Amino acid sequence: MKLNFIIYKNSSHKIYLQLYDAIKNIIENEEIMPNEKLPSIRQIAIKFNINTITVLKAYDLLEKHNYIYKISGKGCFVKEKNKLMSNTQKPVINNFAIMNKNINFASATPSAELYPVHIFQEIINEIFNNYGEKVFNYFSTQGLLELREIITEKLKNNNIDTSSNNIQIVSGSQQALDLIKKIIFKRKTTTIVVTNPTYYGAINTFSEITKMISVPIEKDGINIDEMEKVLQKNKVDFIYTMINFESPTGISWSTEKKRKILEFSEKYNFTIIEDDCLSHLYYYNNVSIPLKAMDTKNKVIYINSFSKLIMPGLRLGYMVVPTNLISYIIAAKFSSDISSSGLMQMALHLFLKRGYMEPHIEKMRTIFREKYELTLSLLQEIKEIEVSYIPNGGFYIWIKLPKGLNSNVFYNVLKDRNVSILPDSVFYQNEELKNDHMRLSFAAVTEKEIKTGIEIIKKSLEEFSQKKDFLFKEDFISIL
Amino acid sequence: MKLNFIIYKNSSHKIYLQLYDAIKNIIENEEIMPNEKLPSIRQIAIKFNINTITVLKAYDLLEKHNYIYKISGKGCFVKEKNKLMSNTQKPVINNFAIMNKNINFASATPSAELYPVHIFQEIINEIFNNYGEKVFNYFSTQGLLELREIITEKLKNNNIDTSSNNIQIVSGSQQALDLIKKIIFKRKTTTIVVTNPTYYGAINTFSEITKMISVPIEKDGINIDEMEKVLQKNKVDFIYTMINFESPTGISWSTEKKRKILEFSEKYNFTIIEDDCLSHLYYYNNVSIPLKAMDTKNKVIYINSFSKLIMPGLRLGYMVVPTNLISYIIAAKFSSDISSSGLMQMALHLFLKRGYMEPHIEKMRTIFREKYELTLSLLQEIKEIEVSYIPNGGFYIWIKLPKGLNSNVFYNVLKDRNVSILPDSVFYQNEELKNDHMRLSFAAVTEKEIKTGIEIIKKSLEEFSQKKDFLFKEDFISIL
Repeated sequence: MKLNFIIYKNSSHKIYLQLYDAIKNIIENEEIMPNEKLPSIRQIAIKFNINTITVLKAYDLLEKHNYIYKISGKGCFVKEKNKLMSNTQKPVINNFAIMNKNINFASATPSAELYPVHIFQEIINEIFNNYGEKVFNYFSTQGLLELREIITEKLKNNNIDTSSNNIQIVSGSQQALDLIKKIIFKRKTTTIVVTNPTYYGAINTFSEITKMISVPIEKDGINIDEMEKVLQKNKVDFIYTMINFESPTGISWSTEKKRKILEFSEKYNFTIIEDDCLSHLYYYNNVSIPLKAMDTKNKVIYINSFSKLIMPGLRLGYMVVPTNLISYIIAAKFSSDISSSGLMQMALHLFLKRGYMEPHIEKMRTIFREKYELTLSLLQEIKEIEVSYIPNGGFYIWIKLPKGLNSNVFYNVLKDRNVSILPDSVFYQNEELKNDHMRLSFAAVTEKEIKTGIEIIKKSLEEFSQKKDFLFKEDFISIL
Repeated sequence: MKLNFIIYKNSSHKIYLQLYDAIKNIIENEEIMPNEKLPSIRQIAIKFNINTITVLKAYDLLEKHNYIYKISGKGCFVKEKNKLMSNTQKPVINNFAIMNKNINFASATPSAELYPVHIFQEIINEIFNNYGEKVFNYFSTQGLLELREIITEKLKNNNIDTSSNNIQIVSGSQQALDLIKKIIFKRKTTTIVVTNPTYYGAINTFSEITKMISVPIEKDGINIDEMEKVLQKNKVDFIYTMINFESPTGISWSTEKKRKILEFSEKYNFTIIEDDCLSHLYYYNNVSIPLKAMDTKNKVIYINSFSKLIMPGLRLGYMVVPTNLISYIIAAKFSSDISSSGLMQMALHLFLKRGYMEPHIEKMRTIFREKYELTLSLLQEIKEIEVSYIPNGGFYIWIKLPKGLNSNVFYNVLKDRNVSILPDSVFYQNEELKNDHMRLSFAAVTEKEIKTGIEIIKKSLEEFSQKKDFLFKEDFISIL
């Protein structure tokens, strides 16, 4: 196959989609024949000087759309035409099949056995019996008033004092980011600061429409001096950040840095977007205070989600929005999907109202503390790596790899060995990254998987330190 | 109250939001005191040379956020401060209270008593029992494969031949428009043609980011000559349209015009966005063929929703997307809300698979045919108006008002008398409109409400034709 196409690096079309389209065209035009081998991921990455992850994403999409198939250890091959449009795999629920294949240290979503699904079944039946067809009407765009009221009440326990008028219900926190993007888009030029590294969903969401400046994160929060320099040089409109057990590093900000950023937000007149989904999951006495709790001047848009604390399938989260912005957010929600599911909002309202939430969080804390301690102790036994930060909460361990081991390469090695992690490249918006860290999340794995998975990581690192490379050989001895 | 603020008409901030902010500030700064009367809607509209509907939207929002209160027939007044942040009304489900207040000829959503809610309760319980917590995990961004497959199958009965790979599940058709907007946005300059008048959601969605050209609609579809002139003068990328029983006019396109627009789409290389949610609701033998069924060259993005045919609370619809665009649509869906509710997708899949859909549509057709015939016959008895088009399907009757009666004024008169309709101004994207039509939808009303509501319309028109004006008097004799 000739790689005679062009990849536009500064285009607004994502590179992996450009690559996907190019290869798809080659296959559709029969420039490469069925069962012929495609170039390796590395070959393409080197040829176009792009990230291997990007190539991998394109290949995954090609596989998903039935253009190619993979043979482990051999590579990727063009599918036969008659197979192109047929669905050979038919998992009952698409995602699970993928999830169950490997040990998933990449996912940040708690494993399904913790979901309070029986309580929800009961509540949902009760709602059907009491409200009948009303459940399936359109609901208010801002969100069910009762749900907004009980969220307001619960927020008081977290020292966040707001009104139900300032709450917007959303279909998960990704939608919250998308709504903010919509109101940002309407202001012609916007500059947003993000911490570096940060959540990749935020990078993807905001990078398209705004000038994005990254400021490094340190063990106690953002680098304040760097931040002030940026503020002095630029008219900054927003900063996006997580404050507690943030992704990917697990870092929590010190009280002093929280105070400082709030001071800055007044002095330099910008709005802080606080993405908070893990502050309830402190494992010792390190109770974590959201920035919003200290926000006396209404400079913070606060985002939280029930995906991690209860279950993602609810597709529910909320925002606390300063009064001067709430009408814009409601309008953006309307133009996105009119309103979130009424049934789910009613069910969540009853779940919160009847006090199921607090014992559920307590249970989560107990279970995840155990997983956290196990994960940390096993990782600390591996001499090749360094745990960069001890989070004492949340799901993420940020790991420094041995010198010479590129995190993207290690990602692929582990993937071949059925272990998923995330390399640092997905959390950086610019080229500062050194490809020397990976994020390990223990949200979705069992204790057995933690043990097996970390054993595989350990053996792989030993293999690397002995040979200073990997062989990608099929005969890698299974240590399962 | 002094109206000494400025409204920026060419701003990307919506005018009603500018007005809302301006008046809110006046109230918050105590430039007007509690219980003082605000200027009338007409006064503001005249002063700033804006539409009365725009002023009304601002006042509605002020009322919703507890800044003002209305006294019917007297006007709007500033709320006392201690009432500002309290929620005086607490309906169990916000929307219903509003809905039930009046006779709603504005809504395009079928009334709730038709929802097959018992079937869904049964199915949902079965899913809970069979799948447990898996129901609440993340689902595939493109949508549950089984659901996409059965939609593909059902589409064949509608002569649309596609693959589950080309289906994107969305949380209602508004989200489909939003996803298209997202992929349009990435192309720097885009020109979109809309029919005039058209669905206001589409105008709102696309007007922000694209050059929009409107082409008039006639009794058998778009004005083909005008369309070709536009195509010759402009590089058009998209056209947005409804083909069958379209909103607001109820018009269905002739086969010839459908063929012609498909021809154009090839010749001038543009994509057609077909928004189709009512083609199943033909009342006689006028079986209506979607444009997509005639689309042999993959020039049509087809949008459909289950909101009108089953119930809006499902928050589910789908798109049929040409292969070259599907990966962009999936990426846009991911950045919007990751995935739609898995539980609802599974439930809808079983509803379709078990054959509940066809008898349900048959039932809808019978019930709405009766409502249609009743509505039409009552309207045809009113000598002051003219039914502009006989749709024989769908929910909308497009009515020409008597000379001299401004549709915005009539909207307000009827609203005061607890009857909601929509004036033509909400369906036009430009200033061509003559304010002489209104849309009456019988989707959400009972037969009794149809009779009462049309009686109120009739009496109001008689009152107008006798006096050539309305008195807006409180003592309008109730004819309920």
